[in-house]
Amino acid sequence: MKRTGPFVRVAFRARRLSKSRLLLGSLFALGLVPVAGFAGGLFDSDDLPIVLKTQGSFMPGGAVVTNPGTFDPIALTPDGQTIHGDHAYAQYQVPLNARRYPLVMWHGGGQFTKTWETTPDGRDGFQNIFLRQRYTTYLIDQPRRGNAGRATTNGTIAAVPGPGPTGEQGIFIRFRLGLWPNYFPNVQFSHDPEALNQWWRQQTPDTATTTNDQATDPVAAMFNQIGPAVLLTHSAGGVLGWITATKSSNVRGVYAYEPVTQVFPEGQVPPPIDSGPLGPITGTPIPLSSFLKLTKIPIEIIWGDNFPITGQPPSKYPDLEVWQGRYTMAQKFVDLVNKYGGHAHMTHLPDIGIKGNTHFAMSDLNNKQIAGLLGKWLHDNRLDGEQRGW
Amino acid sequence: MKRTGPFVRVAFRARRLSKSRLLLGSLFALGLVPVAGFAGGLFDSDDLPIVLKTQGSFMPGGAVVTNPGTFDPIALTPDGQTIHGDHAYAQYQVPLNARRYPLVMWHGGGQFTKTWETTPDGRDGFQNIFLRQRYTTYLIDQPRRGNAGRATTNGTIAAVPGPGPTGEQGIFIRFRLGLWPNYFPNVQFSHDPEALNQWWRQQTPDTATTTNDQATDPVAAMFNQIGPAVLLTHSAGGVLGWITATKSSNVRGVYAYEPVTQVFPEGQVPPPIDSGPLGPITGTPIPLSSFLKLTKIPIEIIWGDNFPITGQPPSKYPDLEVWQGRYTMAQKFVDLVNKYGGHAHMTHLPDIGIKGNTHFAMSDLNNKQIAGLLGKWLHDNRLDGEQRGW
Repeated sequence: MKRTGPFVRVAFRARRLSKSRLLLGSLFALGLVPVAGFAGGLFDSDDLPIVLKTQGSFMPGGAVVTNPGTFDPIALTPDGQTIHGDHAYAQYQVPLNARRYPLVMWHGGGQFTKTWETTPDGRDGFQNIFLRQRYTTYLIDQPRRGNAGRATTNGTIAAVPGPGPTGEQGIFIRFRLGLWPNYFPNVQFSHDPEALNQWWRQQTPDTATTTNDQATDPVAAMFNQIGPAVLLTHSAGGVLGWITATKSSNVRGVYAYEPVTQVFPEGQVPPPIDSGPLGPITGTPIPLSSFLKLTKIPIEIIWGDNFPITGQPPSKYPDLEVWQGRYTMAQKFVDLVNKYGGHAHMTHLPDIGIKGNTHFAMSDLNNKQIAGLLGKWLHDNRLDGEQRGW
Repeated sequence: MKRTGPFVRVAFRARRLSKSRLLLGSLFALGLVPVAGFAGGLFDSDDLPIVLKTQGSFMPGGAVVTNPGTFDPIALTPDGQTIHGDHAYAQYQVPLNARRYPLVMWHGGGQFTKTWETTPDGRDGFQNIFLRQRYTTYLIDQPRRGNAGRATTNGTIAAVPGPGPTGEQGIFIRFRLGLWPNYFPNVQFSHDPEALNQWWRQQTPDTATTTNDQATDPVAAMFNQIGPAVLLTHSAGGVLGWITATKSSNVRGVYAYEPVTQVFPEGQVPPPIDSGPLGPITGTPIPLSSFLKLTKIPIEIIWGDNFPITGQPPSKYPDLEVWQGRYTMAQKFVDLVNKYGGHAHMTHLPDIGIKGNTHFAMSDLNNKQIAGLLGKWLHDNRLDGEQRGW
């Protein structure tokens, strides 16, 4: 695995692309201008062009249900007809001179690929930020969600918000933009009303209920198909990422933004943790032999700001207090992975001086700084390699 | 509107990209190598890189429903909470040195953006084909479909196929791959079982029922936002395209693949047309003042092979016979647009020697030839312009 040379800050700041700028971008794509994202700082390549060898999409995994009987092409009864569903949907983009390991980006609860695309206020999301750094990207919709909405079982969708924390004002709090209708003073989210409008619209419902196995089997199949790659997860995608990593050895690392549920070996699941009215927080048991696979890859968990972490006084707001137990349970997961010889780590962003992040740091106002942390982690774990063999 | 010079066939055929090839691609992106797609032949740019100035996504249009009452951040009842939904989802890609008019690609019934992405057998779809020709592309999911699945009303989804033509074997016939399980001898569809598997999986259900206005208002809002562009439609998207073109003057042309329903001025809707057990075929009335807007833009309708057109003996297979009435009604639409001074035209591909196309020519095995026809139409209607002003 070759590496680029020393970090070169591409400080070109012209907002309109010049031809010389385009030529620089072309040389960059050719690998003739070394650029690295591991310095822990900003990724300053946002006005470089995105140069793709190819891009595409496919539906990995899934099930087929076949009705009994024989198909009649004139009567067109259900007899003998099939339904294909329960697959995932993946869209990939491969830069010229791509780095060795693709980044697979998995959304959280209620969302879809959009989590990683244009931010609500219209800036580059992680998709573009890492493409401009020559990482191949795979953005997925999990089975029974978004463009992978074709299920083999019936579903019902309730559009009415709540009761509970599922209404949009509740989500505003739980995703830690602020206490509706007020933003947190330091929040890394635009106060432009259109940004909030776009953010609320980046949700789409499940077309049917989904088990962890139904969600992870197609993604594991995808990893087996595409080869070694790094998995990024968000929120409810967290536990699905851990399980996927136990199902495919091509998951070479997992970087999880605020995973809300963790896995533990059967018989070693910690007791439920009180976490306010929306708790308690529980762990998900998996076989020890599966859990041990998580000790073979680097794991990082990232937490944002504006919620009480372990040991701090509880919040009176259920949508904030729910995070305390989740944070505590995630630390227990990290500790157990490491006790078994693993390489897991957890970062509370305020502890390293990065303030105001929401539940979705990958699209926050400081998301290039957040991307820089990921770039450093990829470098430190030798996952930022480059493929020079084409 | 400037034009490129004479057509230059880029005949480079190396399957693995060389550095000189990449440099050629870079020069192409800079506009230094003239390439045009209007010769009516193949688009031979499939191994050129895709060079993007930027790409992104957003959700145009939509509704907001607000519950009565006052939001309580501790009780978290539905009181005062909102739901944002009924928007469309759009993903755009802007090549360097992009041509003037973007192509907006709208799927048909039961499908989503995938219609225009990688073909079922893994080749470039129209998205890549036209990006490589420096057209900006917008791929959309219509409201209550795919990544635009967030609706403001409840929905139910039935996964069981049929009765009727909605089962997958029925769709196999109706989309004219063949008479299940046999392919038509000349069909432009791969016989690889994995291609059929992927094709069946490129469906996703509506999350709630949708009216024509609910589907078209957000797309018209998008056109008003993005400026002049050309609209491509498929199948059930056809009538939505006609209506959208009456709602935004930024729709500068409509190119429709097998539109299944047509619009007519109120009071001038033709009588229903018998078309076998799945008929009769009816027209959709709109105000005359709206219809007349369709006379101001170029319109093209494309039909494939393997169904009886007007005047031919009927098929005994309902899923084939249904096309005869649709074809006849579309001709009546074209004739009336032209009677009012418009510029509409209909092409039956077999009549110009192009055989075996299915209901979805944009991803058929000969889709580069099909793209070439569109390229010629864009050229002939001065819609292939280039933007040199950046």
